[in-house]
Amino acid sequence: MPADLSALTLAQQQATQALHLSNPNPRVGCVLTDASGLVIGQGHTQRAGGPHAEVMALRDVQARGLSTHGATAWVTLEPCSHHGRTPPCCDALIAAGVARVVVSTVDPNPLVAGRGVERLRAAGIAVEVLPPDSDLARASRELNIGFFSRMIRGQPWVRMKMAASLDGISALDNGVSQWITGEAARADGHAWRARACAVLTGIGTVREDDPMLDVRLAPTPRQPHLVVVDSRLELSTDARLFQPPAHGLSRQILVAHALDDATAQARGQALLARGATLLSLPGPGGKVDLPALLRELGRREVNELHLEAGHKLNGSFLREGLVDECLVYLAPQLLGSGRGLASLGPFHRLDDGTPLHFTAMDRVGNDLRILARVAAHDGFLHPQTAA
Amino acid sequence: MPADLSALTLAQQQATQALHLSNPNPRVGCVLTDASGLVIGQGHTQRAGGPHAEVMALRDVQARGLSTHGATAWVTLEPCSHHGRTPPCCDALIAAGVARVVVSTVDPNPLVAGRGVERLRAAGIAVEVLPPDSDLARASRELNIGFFSRMIRGQPWVRMKMAASLDGISALDNGVSQWITGEAARADGHAWRARACAVLTGIGTVREDDPMLDVRLAPTPRQPHLVVVDSRLELSTDARLFQPPAHGLSRQILVAHALDDATAQARGQALLARGATLLSLPGPGGKVDLPALLRELGRREVNELHLEAGHKLNGSFLREGLVDECLVYLAPQLLGSGRGLASLGPFHRLDDGTPLHFTAMDRVGNDLRILARVAAHDGFLHPQTAA
Repeated sequence: MPADLSALTLAQQQATQALHLSNPNPRVGCVLTDASGLVIGQGHTQRAGGPHAEVMALRDVQARGLSTHGATAWVTLEPCSHHGRTPPCCDALIAAGVARVVVSTVDPNPLVAGRGVERLRAAGIAVEVLPPDSDLARASRELNIGFFSRMIRGQPWVRMKMAASLDGISALDNGVSQWITGEAARADGHAWRARACAVLTGIGTVREDDPMLDVRLAPTPRQPHLVVVDSRLELSTDARLFQPPAHGLSRQILVAHALDDATAQARGQALLARGATLLSLPGPGGKVDLPALLRELGRREVNELHLEAGHKLNGSFLREGLVDECLVYLAPQLLGSGRGLASLGPFHRLDDGTPLHFTAMDRVGNDLRILARVAAHDGFLHPQTAA
Repeated sequence: MPADLSALTLAQQQATQALHLSNPNPRVGCVLTDASGLVIGQGHTQRAGGPHAEVMALRDVQARGLSTHGATAWVTLEPCSHHGRTPPCCDALIAAGVARVVVSTVDPNPLVAGRGVERLRAAGIAVEVLPPDSDLARASRELNIGFFSRMIRGQPWVRMKMAASLDGISALDNGVSQWITGEAARADGHAWRARACAVLTGIGTVREDDPMLDVRLAPTPRQPHLVVVDSRLELSTDARLFQPPAHGLSRQILVAHALDDATAQARGQALLARGATLLSLPGPGGKVDLPALLRELGRREVNELHLEAGHKLNGSFLREGLVDECLVYLAPQLLGSGRGLASLGPFHRLDDGTPLHFTAMDRVGNDLRILARVAAHDGFLHPQTAA
């Protein structure tokens, strides 16, 4: 492990600039240094189909009129060795005459992990990979938790966004919920939508609030797709979510239902004509098979799934163990009674609930933002420390 | 205002050492400096009946074999000018030959405010009082929020302690609530009990949990008194709260009821024999008159009242606008359904709830601790800035 990791720290900062940009590709940063250790170029992964971090950094060096020959490349994720939407980054590094590559963490896909390193070494390049539990290795995986989830578990990282009063009331008994939290928290929630590949909600929320569920209150270069869980295909084509999303961008609307294909064809004509994609995923009790939906979204390259639904669908996801993380906004208010955050229970023992661990808490405007992970659900992300 | 406030900052640190000690007297610190500005002594208010901060600091100087003549006294609260449990501190400062006194904030009691300053000036001592909105003036008042509340409002500062899962469930439907939060949070809760003059609970909680409600899991030099709201005097003398509290200390048990004196005499014989004090405070609907109870506790020198009750009594206090602050522990868990933090509502508009503002949030063990004040309830504490 190199003594001086400042260039790789800079590469990690570059990677965070791809947060809202590179989906479904991972957020990767690359820094190039010359023989004396000076930074001569840097870059991060662009939107899907555009150049990856390594190519951006190489181009940056060339644009400065400098040479990449003999340089060291500091990359936050193992360079790709396969032809995807773009040619392999390994080839670009080899062609540029890079002498050494330092990598934060290997590719999470077990089928390709290590192949990039092998290919570089075969070309005579010195390659170092950080120990898996080093800070920068962890930071790179955390930034790409959805990509790692999809590659390793075959399904997205599911982040359940909720907003409530301090005493956990998300809506009054009469359904009124707008707005419990303040403007700053709502804008922050849109920024969390923006980093997701898709936002998911239920037909109940669409009926009750008729939301757009796009990214409006935060800047974004792309709109996440929208998934509606709608077992009986009751979604109206008049729903506001069919209107063009903000920032002049477009998105896919996926409607997951539990009908057979023939019934869906009949019922879903108008939705198809509106441009929606129908997913037939019948599960028990006439409901959508949620685990199958997550696998389908994994196949459709959804890394982070932003679940923004009512307490009933939240409860269904939790009961099936499909929620990975809670993003909770708490407003400075006591409301006493109404709807909770998620329909669960009633339980007879405290141990029957969903155990979490808190990972962050911050003030956002007058509200609090709390991040909590479902215990053990991030086990895939970080290697177990040897006993 | 003196340019160098480091001695007064030190005095404020001294004052915080009286947090669990000086009740019902205010938490005050005093530092003495010589003509060159060197600290020659310091002290803080001892337990009620013991010496106040000024006397402790003067004694500290003498114990070091130094002279108090010509010294400057830095005191976090205006020195007392009246005979209480001890002789006036003003007299002690005058007798010690102190030349100058700097005070963080004046006495909150409108009947005595400024008299200490006058008395010192009449004796030829130079007295300076910080501007009311300076940091150290605010810090001194914040530390003594309960004392200021009692002096200005005639009733305690009411801090409602609650513990729940992240989604606001304080107990399952079957009443099970032990333990939602972890050991560190419970010990922290005991430290908050320790700073209060009294802990208050309801007969429902006594019946359901049979708690001690003493300070056991934190060190303390005194036990707060215990107030039980028990409208019909149903408290059993077998309740564990009658057992001697921890640390070999004692406490008063006050039972507030809504019966007339004759009925209470008959029903309350056993409680009186157990050493309890009965307070007849009949209010509407056969319930205890809670505002009258707070005034009575004010008369009994309760500065901070630690409300640790079930959701029903919490709701009653909130509905009557008697809660000043919420101390909430949130555990890393989702429970979905059960009892909330406080029985309120159902409301038809979000504006009908109790508005708060968050003042602090911290991790305590695996749990979160959130402090929130009821909006505008601390208006008495800090002067309004002139427009």
